[in-house]
Amino acid sequence: MNNEALELHKKFRGKLEVKSRIPVNNQKMLSLAYTPGVADVSKLIHEKPEEVFTYTNRWNAVAIVSDGSAVLGLGNIGPEAALPVMEGKAVLFKEFANVDAYPLCINTQDPEKIVEFVETISPTFGGINLEDIASPQCFYIETELRKRLNIPVFHDDQHGAAIIILAALKNALKIIGKRLNEIKVATVGVGAAGGAVIKMLLAAGVRNIVACDRNGILNKNHPETLLNPFHEEIASLINPEGLTGSLEDAMKGADVFIGTSVGGLVTQDMVRSMAKDPVIFAVANPIPEIYPDEAKEAGAKIVATGRSDFDNQINNVLVFPGLFRGALSVRAKDINDEMKLAAVDALAGFLDESEVCESRIIPRAFDPGVGKAVAMAVAKAAIDSGVAKVSPESKELEQIIDGDISLPR
Amino acid sequence: MNNEALELHKKFRGKLEVKSRIPVNNQKMLSLAYTPGVADVSKLIHEKPEEVFTYTNRWNAVAIVSDGSAVLGLGNIGPEAALPVMEGKAVLFKEFANVDAYPLCINTQDPEKIVEFVETISPTFGGINLEDIASPQCFYIETELRKRLNIPVFHDDQHGAAIIILAALKNALKIIGKRLNEIKVATVGVGAAGGAVIKMLLAAGVRNIVACDRNGILNKNHPETLLNPFHEEIASLINPEGLTGSLEDAMKGADVFIGTSVGGLVTQDMVRSMAKDPVIFAVANPIPEIYPDEAKEAGAKIVATGRSDFDNQINNVLVFPGLFRGALSVRAKDINDEMKLAAVDALAGFLDESEVCESRIIPRAFDPGVGKAVAMAVAKAAIDSGVAKVSPESKELEQIIDGDISLPR
Repeated sequence: MNNEALELHKKFRGKLEVKSRIPVNNQKMLSLAYTPGVADVSKLIHEKPEEVFTYTNRWNAVAIVSDGSAVLGLGNIGPEAALPVMEGKAVLFKEFANVDAYPLCINTQDPEKIVEFVETISPTFGGINLEDIASPQCFYIETELRKRLNIPVFHDDQHGAAIIILAALKNALKIIGKRLNEIKVATVGVGAAGGAVIKMLLAAGVRNIVACDRNGILNKNHPETLLNPFHEEIASLINPEGLTGSLEDAMKGADVFIGTSVGGLVTQDMVRSMAKDPVIFAVANPIPEIYPDEAKEAGAKIVATGRSDFDNQINNVLVFPGLFRGALSVRAKDINDEMKLAAVDALAGFLDESEVCESRIIPRAFDPGVGKAVAMAVAKAAIDSGVAKVSPESKELEQIIDGDISLPR
Repeated sequence: MNNEALELHKKFRGKLEVKSRIPVNNQKMLSLAYTPGVADVSKLIHEKPEEVFTYTNRWNAVAIVSDGSAVLGLGNIGPEAALPVMEGKAVLFKEFANVDAYPLCINTQDPEKIVEFVETISPTFGGINLEDIASPQCFYIETELRKRLNIPVFHDDQHGAAIIILAALKNALKIIGKRLNEIKVATVGVGAAGGAVIKMLLAAGVRNIVACDRNGILNKNHPETLLNPFHEEIASLINPEGLTGSLEDAMKGADVFIGTSVGGLVTQDMVRSMAKDPVIFAVANPIPEIYPDEAKEAGAKIVATGRSDFDNQINNVLVFPGLFRGALSVRAKDINDEMKLAAVDALAGFLDESEVCESRIIPRAFDPGVGKAVAMAVAKAAIDSGVAKVSPESKELEQIIDGDISLPR
């Protein structure tokens, strides 16, 4: 048990508070911020609904919705146990990009009801961050909500992970001198994160991916390896050599390993069986598929994990705050592939060539300006791809992002 | 239009923010407040669900839920237009009692779906404040949720109004030397607020109430005056003289008038037709049933309105922050009648005998200590009536309330 974390949470009794950005400490301010003054604000929004983004906090409010069905690596522990994680996420939204995020942990795990729930609360929010919802349900929920709502909907476990992993991989390949279209990637874990990683690698030009899950290597001709319809979809896109077997078989000769499953699955022998200068992304949390020192000892050239206590932390916190900042600041109605790929390039490119090295393939969470860099790139991509309702010129955009990040006044 | 209110809202772009109470500005704190440290907090709550009230903000979080169907006096203007009001309410929750309130404006007005919605989000919250939901649906929604949930559910439009009106009435009667059980009360508006006022007056011992709504005086023998099942219920409890007719008829000889309907319904002649030393509570917002100067000119002894720009403001802000503070601080599983009546007595008794006068029958919102006084009384009533999960002695209770009001540390 991490007693320090427990004590911190107990001492503060949770991590969040909902505060006023307007000083309401006299009768006059009360009459403006509440009745009777607020009635005219309501009337105005009733007449011009879009003005809700100008006169309320909706422009900056994101719901973090979780059903507690796949919390960190802890599994289906329910909404109450998910709450400290969502509060933490809200803290990071604020800290890194000044987004006001509301944790909403719900007590249904029925995909249809989750979709209906999010649709019901959507008038309050400028964006929806789905979190720690198990696969394969998470795919239907996100897809359906993106269709129904005209605000951004983003399942962070899928795309946050995929974005940061692809950014890290791009820089890793610069070091070892290989190209995306010539590498073989072995993965383990084809859930929310693993599935999204595979799709993003394919979109980025990777041709040879072998993926494992509970029943071994996914192979479209071996139905027993496909645990759900999402696995069927993924299997049809990968494994060009038609491999079968276990993770051990998948890793032989691979240039890159990406694990998004559970701790301890990878042995030193598996690392030794990989191609020259192997790249290991062991992202399972809190225990990685293999620890960095073991992997290095077995010949790994570059290792990244999900942990903050080693180099190269693959951490969604580099993604979601800036991504939503960019989307909210230009009133994007969606977070599309262009915006996600822009976030990848912003993160990979945040480190210039001279900085990139084995122990630094991605920025650290507290590198100043990461959130802004992602926000700028995502906002531009939203404008260029036609999903932004506000489309300022580049210079004005930077002023807007700077202002939005530094609020409250 | 209140340009000052519009400008304030536009300048600040809404009124709320969601902030961290823990400084997360380095890798160490990140690893405690978020992964990997938070995983142990989640595990603990999974094992002992009640600990969610110790390790997360749930103990202090209230959802302000509105469907936008009866916003202020503006009617059914929908969830987006309701949002500035709910944000204002959240500001007051924080300002007056340090409660963290989350506005949740929803796009369904189906009572069954609203009940289901609130049940779905309940794991995140320590209490539910229903707001600006039209009658008669609001009665079913509140009743059903109080049955289903074991956290406090409170429809402020009903009970907040009833509590503050009864408190004001108690002090008004001290001035004119009449007793609750001997007065005749005429009311107009038998919606959420008006209905709850009538029920609370009856519970407090008032025997003679005549109530009007759109079709005149409610009379159980005249079905055309009863617009819904709730009117039928109310009509069976009041109007002992079997009066019929209009508001004009109802007010003849009445000692007290209470309006919770729409502006301008009461004429000076109606005031003149009342008993000696008439008491006028013209609470319609933003325009009262009759303005104080007109009412006074026609002989009213004591006048109260919902407005902050006249003496004797009947304002729910005196009620809901302290009420929820008290309920949350002792983990009450309900807000019952005992707690509501305790709030009435705390508010009436907040002014000592020497202070009570025609222009001061109730405290003002910014009178220091009102929130705490209500919280203490409500918490004690919760303990005494057996709905509190935490039952400290009186002295310790005061320390708890003081601490909770002054958080964050």
